Amino acid sequence: MKTYKDLSPSLRTIMTPGPVEVDPRVLRAMSYPILGQFDPEFTELMNETMDMLRDVFQTSNQWAFPIDGTSRSGIEAVLVSIIEPGDKVLVPIYGRFGHLLVEIAERCGAAVVTLEKAWGTVFDPEEISAAIGREKPAIVAMVHGETSTGCVQPFDGIGEECRRVDALLVVDAVATIGGVPVRTDEWLLDAVIGGTQKCLSVPSGMSPITYNARVEAKVLRRKTIERGLRDIDAAVPTVRPVASNYFDLGQLQDYWSPKRLNHHTEATTMLYALREGLRIVLQEGLEARFQRHKKHEAALVAGLQAMGLTLYGDPTCKLAVVTCIRIPAGVDGEAVRAMLLGSFGIEIASSFGPLKGQIWRIGTMGFSCNQKNVLHVLGALEATLHWHGVDISTGKALQAALAVYAGEATPC
Amino acid sequence: MKTYKDLSPSLRTIMTPGPVEVDPRVLRAMSYPILGQFDPEFTELMNETMDMLRDVFQTSNQWAFPIDGTSRSGIEAVLVSIIEPGDKVLVPIYGRFGHLLVEIAERCGAAVVTLEKAWGTVFDPEEISAAIGREKPAIVAMVHGETSTGCVQPFDGIGEECRRVDALLVVDAVATIGGVPVRTDEWLLDAVIGGTQKCLSVPSGMSPITYNARVEAKVLRRKTIERGLRDIDAAVPTVRPVASNYFDLGQLQDYWSPKRLNHHTEATTMLYALREGLRIVLQEGLEARFQRHKKHEAALVAGLQAMGLTLYGDPTCKLAVVTCIRIPAGVDGEAVRAMLLGSFGIEIASSFGPLKGQIWRIGTMGFSCNQKNVLHVLGALEATLHWHGVDISTGKALQAALAVYAGEATPC
Repeated sequence: MKTYKDLSPSLRTIMTPGPVEVDPRVLRAMSYPILGQFDPEFTELMNETMDMLRDVFQTSNQWAFPIDGTSRSGIEAVLVSIIEPGDKVLVPIYGRFGHLLVEIAERCGAAVVTLEKAWGTVFDPEEISAAIGREKPAIVAMVHGETSTGCVQPFDGIGEECRRVDALLVVDAVATIGGVPVRTDEWLLDAVIGGTQKCLSVPSGMSPITYNARVEAKVLRRKTIERGLRDIDAAVPTVRPVASNYFDLGQLQDYWSPKRLNHHTEATTMLYALREGLRIVLQEGLEARFQRHKKHEAALVAGLQAMGLTLYGDPTCKLAVVTCIRIPAGVDGEAVRAMLLGSFGIEIASSFGPLKGQIWRIGTMGFSCNQKNVLHVLGALEATLHWHGVDISTGKALQAALAVYAGEATPC
Repeated sequence: MKTYKDLSPSLRTIMTPGPVEVDPRVLRAMSYPILGQFDPEFTELMNETMDMLRDVFQTSNQWAFPIDGTSRSGIEAVLVSIIEPGDKVLVPIYGRFGHLLVEIAERCGAAVVTLEKAWGTVFDPEEISAAIGREKPAIVAMVHGETSTGCVQPFDGIGEECRRVDALLVVDAVATIGGVPVRTDEWLLDAVIGGTQKCLSVPSGMSPITYNARVEAKVLRRKTIERGLRDIDAAVPTVRPVASNYFDLGQLQDYWSPKRLNHHTEATTMLYALREGLRIVLQEGLEARFQRHKKHEAALVAGLQAMGLTLYGDPTCKLAVVTCIRIPAGVDGEAVRAMLLGSFGIEIASSFGPLKGQIWRIGTMGFSCNQKNVLHVLGALEATLHWHGVDISTGKALQAALAVYAGEATPC
């Protein structure tokens, strides 16, 4: 029989836009023996996790719980639960994950209308509001922080315009939750989807979501019709039941409520991990955490610019937790990444679609976002580029970053 | 600010039909720092997991990988990927999880035809084969082991009949995989869904599946049409693209293949856990593991019968890993369960739907299935029933179980 070695993964410095390194406190939480899903101790842990999610999403919504799947499972759960076939869904696209929203919405039967912006930029919020006023969609779905381009979309006025035309506003905050402000209630976001493996620094495998009473009303209306479906002439209903059992928010909220109606078996160990990750976020404090991400971004950017490297994207909409760098002309970007991993144990990211071979992406997210890592990646990148004969300034990157840490400089 | 305590779950003896106790080796694997999803070390772990899944499913299928979600996510992934709206799906129901198959298939747009059998019994396989020949469904979906009733359905001839009418046979082996034989290739099963948190004794949160070339052909046919969809008059296509992105097996297999096309971010830590859980299963050996489950079942049953308790269900189709006990008349089943948990730290399960308040269910699955646990639950149940004034024989249960372990007795 074939045998397989003991698990013994190398220790990496993970500076991608996710998944990122996990706090040892979270790893330790995952090593605890499990509880049954209806054990009163476990349901209490579920309730605490909901409480902490409300704080992290900055919301007073009743519903805030994880979907048991990776980040896109949260997006699909929200969209499949609220999109009725034929619903008009407006998706402003400014990077790869906008296209994912389109794909998911279309699979749910939506009539999708898109707005597109060149990658590396974002929309003026008024452009989006104007499109909402013009199209009067049932749902607006958009990405908050695009890891594909390192850009963050402002929301000024968009939530208000959605309320005006009675559209639901669904936001993919997978990359931003826990790293940059996501003010669910203040921005009038109706549903928000977060990711675990980015700024929350919990392993991939859960997707925390929150949604308000406007979303719930649409979900429950569909549920009512579903229950009556067999008694009704099939030609009559204009809405169909949610096309998924696993992602049906109506059933999921009954499981996460005091009713505890059995749905799936909650992923025990991932719940332990998420709870511990959220505790760490709240113990640090949200605003302090946002400031920390900005500080390390500043040091990283100062170092990269001191080397003479050029950043990609419009700096006025730069996402603090992802920094995109133009690969210098003539350089094999993959060879550089391979040397960073092989010689330095550092992972940085390549890129998607039209940017393939054009940029590298460095994440400064959650537990990975610290001075040791930023200095390590700057030193390693400088040495690797120099080794490859790239014409860069040497000896300056770490000095520039250290100056930021010492409070003596800010990036150009 | 509200504070939350350090995680410190009580140690439980979990004797439910899942989730069950997790081997400390698996828990330890979950405490390792993570790797990036495209790190060559991680993709190698993914490949090893696929290899081991093929062994556990007893198949030479190319495709065997986990869906990142709880068990029903694997069921939904298979069904949503192969059911075209209007497809006839035959579901033989003999317990609660047959109804789940119906619900999922209906949400996928299937025309579902059911056969029903009284709970506590299973079908004569010839009844199912006759229905397949009569109905000529596109798909037959059925449960292998029903945790709701503790019954196991034999498959003799069903796979052959499915091939004859060109139906795909999809089997929910969530409760059985790793505990009782699931011979995918020998039984001509086209797709099989396993669960992690039962006989594999890995925490809930992944669902390993396997499927053969017949299933793949149907999935890929839909993928082709999906790609051409925008160019085709919407009224023309008779098949629609898969209604889910997260569960689209066509995209998932591209991610799990050497192509490594980006889909989701694989759930790193759960993959570590599944890999370690599968290593443990294969190190024990499948047939030895099946025998172990039968041995502890025999001891448990001997002890329960020695107490004078009555088992629920037809003994000729009893599932080795779940034992259902009729709650004696006049006994508050929930009070007994609460005392088992509170005084003995033991969890046994209540029941679903028509059996609510009628039976208890005891699981002997995976890591939880051991002599220490069986003797602990028998002793605790005897003492608890006696404490509640139930008229049972005392002092006999442990003797009867010990006799089985000593090889001196088999249950009546």
